[in-house]
Amino acid sequence: MKKAVMPGSELISRDPFPASRKIYVPGTLHPIAVAMREIAVGDTRDDYTQTVRPNAPVVVYDTSGPYTDPAADIDIHKGLPKLRAGWVEGRGDRTRSKNGEAVTQLYYARKGIVTAEMEYIAIRENLKNAQSRITPEFVRAEVAAGRAVIPANINHPETEPMIIGRNFLVKINANIGNSAVSSGIAEEVEKAVWACRWGADTIMDLSTGSNIHETREWIIRNTPVPVGTVPIYQALEKVAGKAEELSWEIYRDTLIEQAGQGVDYFTIHAGVLLRYIPLTARRVTGIVSRGGSIMAKWCLAHHRESFLYTHFEEICEIMRAYDVSFSLGDGLRPGSIADANDAAQFAELETLGELTKIAKRHDCQVIIEGPGHVPMHLIKENVDKQMELCEEAPFYTLGPLTTDIAPGYDHITSAIGAAMIGWYGTAMLCYVTPKEHLGLPNKKDVKDGVIAYKIAAHAADLAKGHPGAQYRDDALSKARFEFRWQDQFNLSLDPDTARSFHDETLPAEGAKIAHFCSMCGPHFCSMKITQEIRHFAGEKGLPEEQAVETGMQEKAEEFKQAGSEIYL
Amino acid sequence: MKKAVMPGSELISRDPFPASRKIYVPGTLHPIAVAMREIAVGDTRDDYTQTVRPNAPVVVYDTSGPYTDPAADIDIHKGLPKLRAGWVEGRGDRTRSKNGEAVTQLYYARKGIVTAEMEYIAIRENLKNAQSRITPEFVRAEVAAGRAVIPANINHPETEPMIIGRNFLVKINANIGNSAVSSGIAEEVEKAVWACRWGADTIMDLSTGSNIHETREWIIRNTPVPVGTVPIYQALEKVAGKAEELSWEIYRDTLIEQAGQGVDYFTIHAGVLLRYIPLTARRVTGIVSRGGSIMAKWCLAHHRESFLYTHFEEICEIMRAYDVSFSLGDGLRPGSIADANDAAQFAELETLGELTKIAKRHDCQVIIEGPGHVPMHLIKENVDKQMELCEEAPFYTLGPLTTDIAPGYDHITSAIGAAMIGWYGTAMLCYVTPKEHLGLPNKKDVKDGVIAYKIAAHAADLAKGHPGAQYRDDALSKARFEFRWQDQFNLSLDPDTARSFHDETLPAEGAKIAHFCSMCGPHFCSMKITQEIRHFAGEKGLPEEQAVETGMQEKAEEFKQAGSEIYL
Repeated sequence: MKKAVMPGSELISRDPFPASRKIYVPGTLHPIAVAMREIAVGDTRDDYTQTVRPNAPVVVYDTSGPYTDPAADIDIHKGLPKLRAGWVEGRGDRTRSKNGEAVTQLYYARKGIVTAEMEYIAIRENLKNAQSRITPEFVRAEVAAGRAVIPANINHPETEPMIIGRNFLVKINANIGNSAVSSGIAEEVEKAVWACRWGADTIMDLSTGSNIHETREWIIRNTPVPVGTVPIYQALEKVAGKAEELSWEIYRDTLIEQAGQGVDYFTIHAGVLLRYIPLTARRVTGIVSRGGSIMAKWCLAHHRESFLYTHFEEICEIMRAYDVSFSLGDGLRPGSIADANDAAQFAELETLGELTKIAKRHDCQVIIEGPGHVPMHLIKENVDKQMELCEEAPFYTLGPLTTDIAPGYDHITSAIGAAMIGWYGTAMLCYVTPKEHLGLPNKKDVKDGVIAYKIAAHAADLAKGHPGAQYRDDALSKARFEFRWQDQFNLSLDPDTARSFHDETLPAEGAKIAHFCSMCGPHFCSMKITQEIRHFAGEKGLPEEQAVETGMQEKAEEFKQAGSEIYL
Repeated sequence: MKKAVMPGSELISRDPFPASRKIYVPGTLHPIAVAMREIAVGDTRDDYTQTVRPNAPVVVYDTSGPYTDPAADIDIHKGLPKLRAGWVEGRGDRTRSKNGEAVTQLYYARKGIVTAEMEYIAIRENLKNAQSRITPEFVRAEVAAGRAVIPANINHPETEPMIIGRNFLVKINANIGNSAVSSGIAEEVEKAVWACRWGADTIMDLSTGSNIHETREWIIRNTPVPVGTVPIYQALEKVAGKAEELSWEIYRDTLIEQAGQGVDYFTIHAGVLLRYIPLTARRVTGIVSRGGSIMAKWCLAHHRESFLYTHFEEICEIMRAYDVSFSLGDGLRPGSIADANDAAQFAELETLGELTKIAKRHDCQVIIEGPGHVPMHLIKENVDKQMELCEEAPFYTLGPLTTDIAPGYDHITSAIGAAMIGWYGTAMLCYVTPKEHLGLPNKKDVKDGVIAYKIAAHAADLAKGHPGAQYRDDALSKARFEFRWQDQFNLSLDPDTARSFHDETLPAEGAKIAHFCSMCGPHFCSMKITQEIRHFAGEKGLPEEQAVETGMQEKAEEFKQAGSEIYL
């Protein structure tokens, strides 16, 4: 199934998901083919009536890119196909950019132009036409209003277009980054591919160290989702880790270098103002954002306002020339329950609101980063204030963690907060792995973090009443009720784990067609009993309601004599 | 450290938690000694000023029982010390019981009597006197009002008293049960001890099979927390799994048998009425409660109202004679997102409300079981309806799971719902393990489930503003900020996992006193930078606010020259 490839590519995860095939849905406005995953589902078999009814396959949103398409020719040395190259060229973006004109999706949206990216997204979000509201025009309008962002650097044509906004599916981000012990190029690419496989909608490359430029190049060329970075990290490497030696010039050159490579969004901590730093003095955990603390140190060392703030309009000029989206960083986010929703945090948020307005004047796309550590009862205030201060620009939060007492389980402490803040209107959730606060995530940790966040995002979609969200739940639950074990596994977020957990207790193949399971055994199986009850009603030719309500003792007797042993 | 013991006892987990010792706080009204765990914490060392300030030890609520006390003499063949035997005797409960008088905590509370159990609980909940509101009289008043329950069968004197009510710490339950392949007695006891070790406030023994009575006896005699059961399971064993052959007499005898052994609460699905069964006909997943489906089958087979309902007052007589608390089961709880908050579920809840009133007339203690599978936006309605219909009797919910699509991760899908429903007022959360829907939980699954639910319960305590809750978060976060790694591990819910995750990346002992960690390294450590900033302010003899606000360029220059290299 795997194609022969160049050295290194064999390390990349490429197995298709079980019972799944890649489908490509064509556009009507643009010559596009939108990638989705279709999961085949077995028939509903009624052993009482000996009838068989087929179930429609289930189409799901797919972030895994060409890697899970057995027909795709993957060579990490060549990079992914340049899906968007023709679109960018067709708009003349490169020429426009050289002439100092904006090439951002916001610019086109405001002009009333529905780009190929917008149509791609409308089809992608509109699973099985469940959400007819999501038209290409709706996508354009949301982007034009600044309520949604399409991270799509003109130099990252390998991305499959996606959107971040609260009127769309909630998205998740996975952070990756090279470790101190430098690994090979294929290993770095595999980290990104692995995160996308399990559902990351964007990745952030937080690499540090000497090979930072080259590593990023490999990641961007081989990643099918938008890639974000925190450019101050690379700038700091250029001054050997001495924050006080940073300068606007070094930072600006870093922005241009990374924008030229194709980074789709930059985290920029431009809201850390000199006067806010004292507000962190009485905190339990001070400043916990790396970028925030670097800038705070610079501000104090120079006793001047941050160059990110004083040069913000020049930053906008760079962003609009490549369509790099702003992710305005929350450098003063709380690092503990004690510090949640404090003066420092909300002071910075006000400044982020001002900067949002400036960026949008330049036709730049903007999302706003949020906390952090927040107890449940203080979560909603974060969303309400952010929407008000930042003109509904999409919110992008780290968790939040709802307690500090469970290091080793912070994917769970934060999935609770993430689900809630997603429900309240946050558009993208930055994952947290079990290693948070403790160490560097390995492959298992990355997967655990991504799955926990897919759960949070999907729970939020359900709570928001997203019309396309619940049909996967319904299909899986129907499969569960009908003892279609393989379908239950295949429809789940992680079929491998579901299947292996089942096999730990009942490894025999026959158990996967059994009409009960290991937890209760045949006597206690509530699902089986319910099916018997329904059959009892059905064979009398009555709806179940009537079968009961007619209340005929005769039927009760028949059921007693015939009903319960059928499956034993 | 471990004492020599009888055969089998060596299989029981007994290691004390790291840096922890058992303390016993005396009562003032009764001769009681309330068990707690005290965690020693290291000093705060300021390397800049060369000063050392001690930190107070942190006392935490402890469900592990005598097992974690190295001085305790554990012999599972003798059982735990009978802590409450003298209290029960002192009240003459056994004589009262024989005379047909109530011996329930509710009875005493209504008489204005503060029992030893109530004082024990007041001290236990009142960690570090943080919550002065929780007095013995407050405990009594809450029990008298039916807003809280103390599960305390007079025949289970081994229990350390605990309370379930929304004005107390949120509690969690862990289900255990023997597997098809019968294991030894010590293995069964270890399951309960293991769950309590990690934080289970009660356990439910859901064993089935032939050795059900003997297994239960061993578990009760060796468990320091209240034990619940679902008596219909054993009754069904007595009729060889044929639900339609169940009878009131068989069920009654089972209740008496189990009450006599010391079971502290019974799940009784008395709200599954004949007329409600048709309401489940159109559901995606029908009836998913085992007890509920058994009773539904019985009702249909006989076309009569459930004997649990028709004999409810006789059940009350049994419960009050031993002080077994009712846990009124939700036999019609939803088993999928599609079925949440439907007519069947709420119809049953209304009946549970009626039954609550009857039980309370008999001086019986009552808690109410709840769902299940519920999307986030429908969770609060469950609590609101339950409080209204059941006169604020404590709510005890299974999760709820907030999506159906993640089998293998349902401890997470449900921890989200559990945290929220706890915040809204649910008093006890029944855990869900990663094996839910798939297989039988092993030891790792039980621990994963308990920890996920301790997180949910604690997050709920924080959100409710429980005054005693946040100080553990604050102590851990302070340790984290001060690079006291060992303290961070020791204060966490699972010190073993936190320590081993840290060691995966930085195994050297020296790394545990390092003033940075593997995630960011020394250049990028925000915590370290914040400390430098504070030091800069501190050494000038100024509060940090002023150090910044005076705005003296001189200080900035000094900091630039001297500040940043100290730790490198």
